[in-house]
Amino acid sequence: MSRTIHLALHPYGVGGPGQHGLWKDPRVAKNASIDIGYYIKQAQAAEHALFDALFVVDSQFINATYPSHYLNRLEPLTLLSAVATHTRHIGLVGTASSTYNSPFNLARRFASLDHISGGRAGWNVVTSFDTGTSRNFGLDEHLDYATRYGRALEFVQVARGLWDSYEDDAFPADVARGVFLDPAKLHELNHEGEHFKVAGPLNLSRSPQGQPVIFQAGVSEEGRDLAAQVAEGIYAPGGSLEQAQEYYADIKRRTASYGRDPEHIKIFIHGGPVVAATDEAARRREREIFDEDNDFDRNLALLGRSFGAYDFSGHDLDAPFPDVAHLAEKGGRTGASKLIERARAENLTLRQVAESVSEFRRSPFVGAPDTVADTIEKWFDAGTFDGINLAFRTDDDLELFVDGVVPILQKRGLFRTEYAADTLRGNLGLPVPANRHTHGPAPAGSTGP
Amino acid sequence: MSRTIHLALHPYGVGGPGQHGLWKDPRVAKNASIDIGYYIKQAQAAEHALFDALFVVDSQFINATYPSHYLNRLEPLTLLSAVATHTRHIGLVGTASSTYNSPFNLARRFASLDHISGGRAGWNVVTSFDTGTSRNFGLDEHLDYATRYGRALEFVQVARGLWDSYEDDAFPADVARGVFLDPAKLHELNHEGEHFKVAGPLNLSRSPQGQPVIFQAGVSEEGRDLAAQVAEGIYAPGGSLEQAQEYYADIKRRTASYGRDPEHIKIFIHGGPVVAATDEAARRREREIFDEDNDFDRNLALLGRSFGAYDFSGHDLDAPFPDVAHLAEKGGRTGASKLIERARAENLTLRQVAESVSEFRRSPFVGAPDTVADTIEKWFDAGTFDGINLAFRTDDDLELFVDGVVPILQKRGLFRTEYAADTLRGNLGLPVPANRHTHGPAPAGSTGP
Repeated sequence: MSRTIHLALHPYGVGGPGQHGLWKDPRVAKNASIDIGYYIKQAQAAEHALFDALFVVDSQFINATYPSHYLNRLEPLTLLSAVATHTRHIGLVGTASSTYNSPFNLARRFASLDHISGGRAGWNVVTSFDTGTSRNFGLDEHLDYATRYGRALEFVQVARGLWDSYEDDAFPADVARGVFLDPAKLHELNHEGEHFKVAGPLNLSRSPQGQPVIFQAGVSEEGRDLAAQVAEGIYAPGGSLEQAQEYYADIKRRTASYGRDPEHIKIFIHGGPVVAATDEAARRREREIFDEDNDFDRNLALLGRSFGAYDFSGHDLDAPFPDVAHLAEKGGRTGASKLIERARAENLTLRQVAESVSEFRRSPFVGAPDTVADTIEKWFDAGTFDGINLAFRTDDDLELFVDGVVPILQKRGLFRTEYAADTLRGNLGLPVPANRHTHGPAPAGSTGP
Repeated sequence: MSRTIHLALHPYGVGGPGQHGLWKDPRVAKNASIDIGYYIKQAQAAEHALFDALFVVDSQFINATYPSHYLNRLEPLTLLSAVATHTRHIGLVGTASSTYNSPFNLARRFASLDHISGGRAGWNVVTSFDTGTSRNFGLDEHLDYATRYGRALEFVQVARGLWDSYEDDAFPADVARGVFLDPAKLHELNHEGEHFKVAGPLNLSRSPQGQPVIFQAGVSEEGRDLAAQVAEGIYAPGGSLEQAQEYYADIKRRTASYGRDPEHIKIFIHGGPVVAATDEAARRREREIFDEDNDFDRNLALLGRSFGAYDFSGHDLDAPFPDVAHLAEKGGRTGASKLIERARAENLTLRQVAESVSEFRRSPFVGAPDTVADTIEKWFDAGTFDGINLAFRTDDDLELFVDGVVPILQKRGLFRTEYAADTLRGNLGLPVPANRHTHGPAPAGSTGP
């Protein structure tokens, strides 16, 4: 296991789940989530701090109960393309659904971002757990778990096939011979699978990374298996240290079981650090944040999101958690089933379950800079992550971490003091995939014109 | 009719149809079509010259016989998002297919570009005429003309419905009252049509233009009718002065027949001006360009593109043009039917038809700066266009036009001397559409946060 920690920045905008009150903070611009200037500044701050990546989450369904940031935010690929030309080193990871996109278009957009950014594109593959999404794409019913994950696996395989359409030396652009393209180095894919038929070739050459980096956020069995098969990065659920250890070991084991090097899948846990001058001040601030964000109605709506945007408000709040297992099957991520299990095991009321929702992402990294650095090191040494996906409420919080914690991590040799590469693969220590049509090792550098 | 000409720039990259030899020009970077720096410079040069828009064409199918620029180019929306933050006034028009995209995703991406650019996004709606495109999207057969155009019309209607999801004042973001969104100002679309079922709402607020500007390139009956119903800009076929007059009058008449103001559809003809110090030098240069680009095999392949990537190379070149009318129906644009008609009427051989292909876009604007300005004025006064979509082979050619012709047009009051607005609508003189859910006039400015 590498002794270097990877850090990513997940911009909150005006606030997602568990940050219902964030938009009220006077330091948060009310239009942050649709202001490209906000994202450029976030990316530049993260790059200044030598972070590996900017990580942009996404979804394709809302109703009026959804968190502020979800209601009104820029689309990740247009956002990251705009950010790309204002940064030089930081990776640009965008979330896109394999359920509600087509492989040709999406593979092309990520390859385009990889060209635009000079090799810094990453794709966070999600299968869309909001059941309502289906109705934005002409389907009455959301695809079930197995179909969505089967489709996701095949989608990534097709995308990778399309990304290999051109060999790296396909474009001699030889004026003397009058040859721009060597047609023997352009390959059709002719994929025919269970979910997709895609002929190819892609109308875009291999990008500087060979292929954009694949991220995934696998929680369920299907998700973990998908990640182990194709992911090179994971946005992990976190939880307690023991839960994170179990997840980390499980993913690395599964990855090896698919014949892959477990070093080639980097596991990021969520971290919303609360850093202050003293441990006590940090704990006080954490309590304040919790109080600010603990909006019961919002939490009830958020709870509903895990059950297909189900409206729980008609139920008796103080009766036992209702029987909604049937709703968890299609839309809900594993969280939904786990909630039901826990509600039964602990005999919780609907109110108690809803109140627990905003605590899901309580950060282990709370305290003075030394304390936070110690905790990070402890968790890292315990085999819980390769990287942390950091989210900050305000620029002040980002600064407290970058100025306070990062130098300690650097002093301990746990974090880089300069970028090793200009590509996301390079900084994550991931290999450039060889083109399937090319014999011999793939060159590490750029493609032909 | 407004006395002001609109100008757009259509970047050629390493060369599309009719510019087969362009990549060999030492002034053209071999990677221009995948270099975001090239596009940023083109946009900045066009903005410096006060042009209305950068116009990026696109397609989603290639084979090795396709023009150099088609083989390997950036995807328009990622490209334009990157360009957006390096420009301030120029419109950003991207081509995207209504046949091979879904309304929710595409509407969102264009709205996102409109937010990122501060109100400069335009969507050139195409239906994809390369029949092979279908095989990149899981279909054995390309959709036929009528279906594609019916789908295009409904697609634009759905997109516009989604763009109106939020009223302009939907986000009070009122900290005192604790109200970020006013839920009464968020509207579901619940569209159920022949081609699409889309519930909405879109997860993005109205953009600075209210709605991105719709462009179209209607040549056929179906295309002209679609344009007249929904387009606010057209990339017209051009041809002779008489043909352009007929087209212009026809589109304006059709637009009025749909109850629309004919001033609210701006017709751009293609112009690849050849400017030189003298008329004779320009004509000589035009001949050179023609000779450079007149690659018979490429033209034969290009001809095939209008007939579903049909391979004509097995036919006798000197026999009468073969009977390929059945191939023109699905994939070919109207050009295909027109070619067949002309071949029959003039009794042309396959060789003669193929040789004619590279001349389709011969520019009327050839000569010394004064001559070109005269011709532009003559064509404009003759009612052939509202704007010209200019394409230049090299930066030298762009400069010759901008430094030579533009000042003459300005002196004659035919072209702006400063931008009137920071939005594409503003510069084109197009109204900001009122939100369908809002009573009273829509504010011209920006949306809520």
